[in-house]
Amino acid sequence: MNKKKIINDPVYGFISIPTELIFDLVEHRYFQRLRYIKQLGMTHLVYPGALHTRFHHALGALHLMGLAVETLRGKGTEISAEEEEAVEIAILLHDIGHGPFSHALENTLVKGVSHEMISSLLMDRLNVEFNGQLTLAIRIFNDTYPRHFLHQLVSGQLDIDRLDYLNRDSFFTGVSEGVISFDRIIKMLNVVDDYIVVEEKGIYSVEKFLIARRLMYWQVYLHKTVIAAEMLLVKILERGRLLALNKFELFATPPLAHFLQKSVVKEAFVTDPRHLDAFVNLDDTDILSAVKVWVNHSDFILSDLCSRFINRNLYRVELTNMPPDLELTVRLKHQAIQKLDLLDEEDAGYYVFTDRVVNDAYKVGDENIRILLKSGEVQDIADASDNSNLISLSKRVVKYVLCVIKDV
Amino acid sequence: MNKKKIINDPVYGFISIPTELIFDLVEHRYFQRLRYIKQLGMTHLVYPGALHTRFHHALGALHLMGLAVETLRGKGTEISAEEEEAVEIAILLHDIGHGPFSHALENTLVKGVSHEMISSLLMDRLNVEFNGQLTLAIRIFNDTYPRHFLHQLVSGQLDIDRLDYLNRDSFFTGVSEGVISFDRIIKMLNVVDDYIVVEEKGIYSVEKFLIARRLMYWQVYLHKTVIAAEMLLVKILERGRLLALNKFELFATPPLAHFLQKSVVKEAFVTDPRHLDAFVNLDDTDILSAVKVWVNHSDFILSDLCSRFINRNLYRVELTNMPPDLELTVRLKHQAIQKLDLLDEEDAGYYVFTDRVVNDAYKVGDENIRILLKSGEVQDIADASDNSNLISLSKRVVKYVLCVIKDV
Amino acid sequence: MNKKKIINDPVYGFISIPTELIFDLVEHRYFQRLRYIKQLGMTHLVYPGALHTRFHHALGALHLMGLAVETLRGKGTEISAEEEEAVEIAILLHDIGHGPFSHALENTLVKGVSHEMISSLLMDRLNVEFNGQLTLAIRIFNDTYPRHFLHQLVSGQLDIDRLDYLNRDSFFTGVSEGVISFDRIIKMLNVVDDYIVVEEKGIYSVEKFLIARRLMYWQVYLHKTVIAAEMLLVKILERGRLLALNKFELFATPPLAHFLQKSVVKEAFVTDPRHLDAFVNLDDTDILSAVKVWVNHSDFILSDLCSRFINRNLYRVELTNMPPDLELTVRLKHQAIQKLDLLDEEDAGYYVFTDRVVNDAYKVGDENIRILLKSGEVQDIADASDNSNLISLSKRVVKYVLCVIKDV
Amino acid sequence: MNKKKIINDPVYGFISIPTELIFDLVEHRYFQRLRYIKQLGMTHLVYPGALHTRFHHALGALHLMGLAVETLRGKGTEISAEEEEAVEIAILLHDIGHGPFSHALENTLVKGVSHEMISSLLMDRLNVEFNGQLTLAIRIFNDTYPRHFLHQLVSGQLDIDRLDYLNRDSFFTGVSEGVISFDRIIKMLNVVDDYIVVEEKGIYSVEKFLIARRLMYWQVYLHKTVIAAEMLLVKILERGRLLALNKFELFATPPLAHFLQKSVVKEAFVTDPRHLDAFVNLDDTDILSAVKVWVNHSDFILSDLCSRFINRNLYRVELTNMPPDLELTVRLKHQAIQKLDLLDEEDAGYYVFTDRVVNDAYKVGDENIRILLKSGEVQDIADASDNSNLISLSKRVVKYVLCVIKDV
Repeated sequence: MNKKKIINDPVYGFISIPTELIFDLVEHRYFQRLRYIKQLGMTHLVYPGALHTRFHHALGALHLMGLAVETLRGKGTEISAEEEEAVEIAILLHDIGHGPFSHALENTLVKGVSHEMISSLLMDRLNVEFNGQLTLAIRIFNDTYPRHFLHQLVSGQLDIDRLDYLNRDSFFTGVSEGVISFDRIIKMLNVVDDYIVVEEKGIYSVEKFLIARRLMYWQVYLHKTVIAAEMLLVKILERGRLLALNKFELFATPPLAHFLQKSVVKEAFVTDPRHLDAFVNLDDTDILSAVKVWVNHSDFILSDLCSRFINRNLYRVELTNMPPDLELTVRLKHQAIQKLDLLDEEDAGYYVFTDRVVNDAYKVGDENIRILLKSGEVQDIADASDNSNLISLSKRVVKYVLCVIKDV
Repeated sequence: MNKKKIINDPVYGFISIPTELIFDLVEHRYFQRLRYIKQLGMTHLVYPGALHTRFHHALGALHLMGLAVETLRGKGTEISAEEEEAVEIAILLHDIGHGPFSHALENTLVKGVSHEMISSLLMDRLNVEFNGQLTLAIRIFNDTYPRHFLHQLVSGQLDIDRLDYLNRDSFFTGVSEGVISFDRIIKMLNVVDDYIVVEEKGIYSVEKFLIARRLMYWQVYLHKTVIAAEMLLVKILERGRLLALNKFELFATPPLAHFLQKSVVKEAFVTDPRHLDAFVNLDDTDILSAVKVWVNHSDFILSDLCSRFINRNLYRVELTNMPPDLELTVRLKHQAIQKLDLLDEEDAGYYVFTDRVVNDAYKVGDENIRILLKSGEVQDIADASDNSNLISLSKRVVKYVLCVIKDV
Repeated sequence: MNKKKIINDPVYGFISIPTELIFDLVEHRYFQRLRYIKQLGMTHLVYPGALHTRFHHALGALHLMGLAVETLRGKGTEISAEEEEAVEIAILLHDIGHGPFSHALENTLVKGVSHEMISSLLMDRLNVEFNGQLTLAIRIFNDTYPRHFLHQLVSGQLDIDRLDYLNRDSFFTGVSEGVISFDRIIKMLNVVDDYIVVEEKGIYSVEKFLIARRLMYWQVYLHKTVIAAEMLLVKILERGRLLALNKFELFATPPLAHFLQKSVVKEAFVTDPRHLDAFVNLDDTDILSAVKVWVNHSDFILSDLCSRFINRNLYRVELTNMPPDLELTVRLKHQAIQKLDLLDEEDAGYYVFTDRVVNDAYKVGDENIRILLKSGEVQDIADASDNSNLISLSKRVVKYVLCVIKDV
Repeated sequence: MNKKKIINDPVYGFISIPTELIFDLVEHRYFQRLRYIKQLGMTHLVYPGALHTRFHHALGALHLMGLAVETLRGKGTEISAEEEEAVEIAILLHDIGHGPFSHALENTLVKGVSHEMISSLLMDRLNVEFNGQLTLAIRIFNDTYPRHFLHQLVSGQLDIDRLDYLNRDSFFTGVSEGVISFDRIIKMLNVVDDYIVVEEKGIYSVEKFLIARRLMYWQVYLHKTVIAAEMLLVKILERGRLLALNKFELFATPPLAHFLQKSVVKEAFVTDPRHLDAFVNLDDTDILSAVKVWVNHSDFILSDLCSRFINRNLYRVELTNMPPDLELTVRLKHQAIQKLDLLDEEDAGYYVFTDRVVNDAYKVGDENIRILLKSGEVQDIADASDNSNLISLSKRVVKYVLCVIKDV
């Protein structure tokens, strides 16, 4: 069988699968399930093109990793065929632990179980299944392999993951603000003392990358409607969970039922394989089919929340620099109680609540981006750049979110 | 409320909703459900970017219709504001009757009920709900309005529907073979004697359009893997239907259960509103969630087919110019019976069967594309064009399909 | 004759000429000469695609102006057909006074005569020729028409000129750093109290625009090689001029000869029509053909400079934040004298010299960009924006340039 | 010095110069002169973006050749580093013999001396200068190297030259009809028995390529206005030549003067190096600066033709399937004599004349494009393809051209 497959990608033209092992990993059902998990959750409500999946993103990142390895080799950094395959596997599988609507899920059904942890568990399983062929990839992923720059390509402030997702998310949303010169950035990469550096000529492209990332946050990732839809999904799953734990009957596919009816803590997830077995059968379809059916559930709150979700009658979201006034929140809850004839403040908490979002365009101190000057010297980008933009970019932006249903 | 919404579209940049009525139609749940119906069904198995929906296509066609009206007005064809809104509504709603995986569905669950008919029924319902404001749109759609060219823009050999879908399908699949000069074609449109004509300068763009359409058929729409996946879905739904009619228990959302448990004929669909009520709740999610669960059904054939679908262990498809040899088919069926321990030839029919696909790039006689020569004369494109390509394009291509599971 | 011409533009697809008067202006030889004047002078030495002309840019700006007028009208700002045509003419002709290699020319052959002044003179001439039909356009251009926002569209911090040139220069150089969401920005424009404002939703697009402009400055407009080539052209024209004034024979087309042999001051340019008559025959061809021939001139300095230009043996350019050390410059000049066997420091000034470049991404105080908040309030963008980026963008960047031939 | 340069290209993103030798060839003045020779001559009169140069095309072809070599190696065809460099040099230099406005020039100033011959002469000169390092490249170019497929990549019915120019010409004209899937075609290339073949999956891309090429002929390369401008340039150069041979004084740069004042036959070109020395100094600038000045020449015909050229008052061009009626031509000539007060029919020949254009989209018999079927068999594309399009494409199209000035 020909395992040198070529895949059409509207973003890069073509993506080649570089080795047979990688081909087999792509074909594996753990990876294939990412076909049904959208990269940007409910963002398509605002940007109807944003239906691309984690499957597509992982393949795109694989492609860019190939280009990065080729560039670094061209500049004299030796990378063995084994290392190349390993770093490609690491990027291919870096997000394999994502569930459907990850943000919502990690706050509800698998509370306390991060997708990073699940990625690790799945890589370990795959490593067993593939007779240890993923060992080096896992070491690179966990940063326990001595050649640190390989890990940086997988996970860092300017990693291949970000290059692909900014690029891909811009492409499918149609938000040109996020367009970055990924090819130029990659061509400017180099390795000095086992660290990834960017050659001086690429400094504007890196600045643009950081700015694009910040703009994408405000324009796409933290768009009020997107926040509203995801928060509503959180509340729906919370309510569904509560009902299920209390033995109410709920339409659900078996894997969804598994997580609705059990409170799975982190330790249990690691020790009892049945949780992971259920998890790898969960995708967007399970969640969405349930929400659609729950519209007609006898529980008023569940049915009402689902109905709002389906009809996009979402929360009104306010983003503020200061935490919302507690008194205001209480007052709004009481209005909700009256308006919807609810029982108490706890029930009102499905309709009025607060949260917090954080955006670091660039984290100072967190393995800064290094610039290789023409002089041969390596400098932190904040020092190498001529302008004070980066200072503002490295300022953590915290916003407080107040969600209130529109009828209040 | 601001109803002059602007929507980001990676294909055209921005799409503006032109009027309040159209805004309300877009917001309507009949239209919003198209968000969950992929334009190209299972094509994303081959082209992972092809996840765009009928919702997005309908908006794109709305946008192009606005450009077409603007062009025609600029050339002196009077089109009233009312007519403009009506022709825009007609194109917006032209596909509203599509169900999930239309081809599969129309061959199984709603056999004999075409999506065109359902579109008509839904437009009528909407017209009632909107107090007759869709009457003109419906007349244009049905070609009962005297200004025939308006109907041609909605439905013809060079209509706005095709311009958008070729464009959009090329974009999201990444198959540049289908790229067409939609903007040039639109700028070359004109009206003579109530018929749409293309100005002579646009003749190459029209030729390119016809060729692109043919190439998209072979490279995308009739790609063997796409055919295999859709045929497999047909067989799954057939089997599920059979089991349901025989009172086997089957996991299904309520709208899917409705169509599994009943044989709805065309007349019933028109007269009993419950069928349409169920239909408008059906989308890709309902089908896919069921298939995932059915993998574990006790019926071997259903479970086996679903398992093949999920694991993309699809049929081997052969396309031939002549019908496959009947004897060969019988022999293959018998192999399947042995291999899978099946009961009889009827059961084997889920694993080995034949079908037919047809492709008319350009139908001669079916309201031919007219070219407006510089001399003022109007000519059929086949006569106006210098080359004999169009003759070959107008040759109907019929291919015979033989589907056989891979293990046989 | 059909004057509703459509022009293919790789940037926007198609550009339509909106009225007959504008068609006639486009056809006029004053405008057609812009076909032979590159927008970015010698930038094509670095970015080989950057061959686009001022002709193409002016047409692009015309196109965007049409979109802007359409948007503003759609939001309720009345703009008469006469005003529309006038503001379109104003943008079409805003750069008509540019000569070949404008920067070089304005520092040498037409010293003290700005292209803005020449644009004004040419518009006045055209107004006479077209019987006063340009009067309103000229008033808008000069900001003497009461509706100030129309002038702002032609010339301001976020004008149509900049939108097109950033877009077009990015496109043809291939520098994706400069890509801006021109269509989004235009769709977000509005008018409040006769001032152009941007609706709040467009704030990220405006930030991106300002950042893109700054990046294009450093990556393209002030690229060292581009500076080096243009400076060398200045020195060549200075030397040629000196020789011509001293009656040396020099190959030159008649319009170039006109400006080589005369020192035309600003007043003379206005009062004596022969200067403008010669100017409108001058384009890139005249300069480049002369430089090629002068390679073989008997004057060593002229011949040497031209030879360096043709062989791209350009200056080494250093950009510094502080003025270069005077002593260093003198030392370098002396080295040049020795190396090239020159006469004196004056001659060495062709080979070693200093200059200054300035870049304001955003000028505070200079009619700031205004944001229309959702509340209806209008705010300066620096106040409306969440981040401190704009402060750094509004910091004027001054760089000192030191040019030295490479052999020293 | 860093000779691993990267060049921004709006078409492909980035082009890398692969080796030092190739870097030195790119820097050579013979190659650099292509910066001033537009790929499409006067086509920019119709498509204002079409200003790209033969320099840019040659670099683009170099880039694609690198991709082709990589693909073939990936499929097991061994290509040594030396062969790779040689085939890259061959494609880089394949058009180095082009002069300005090649078609016009080859019909006038260097009649009988083809650009192919000049390319050969220049490669030989370069080979001497580079101490024989081009020998292998020249053998590949001349098809005297045994591995025939390398030659086919440089020159064949589906060569890298055509892939780049179709792509590039579409891009810069904005004519999307010519867009081809160059990346897909390249990925489908393979070698069987020393011949280039296309894998079966690529057959639609090849069909599309052939069709795109034909459409580009009619829409761009043989656009009536382009023909008219180039024919006018032919007549201008013919007239200028006649005057020069008759010792009239004519403004001209030295290299242009060289060819105006001499009748250089093919043999002389080969034997006397002064002709080639003059030729390598000739570019678009020389021709255009002369035409601009000749507008004021005392010879009525020269001055009149140049004036028409500058003011784009071009011929009316008629393309017909049959040769124009001789009698009609004579009658038109007589009208021209009267109208313009010309001397005789010979003079009228500048204003009224006929010519012929030929277009072979695909030449049967001329080393046909070969398809590698999945079965392993190699077939001619005409046999492998399902449709009769290719028959029509392989029909030579001959058109007769009648050029008449517009005032007649």
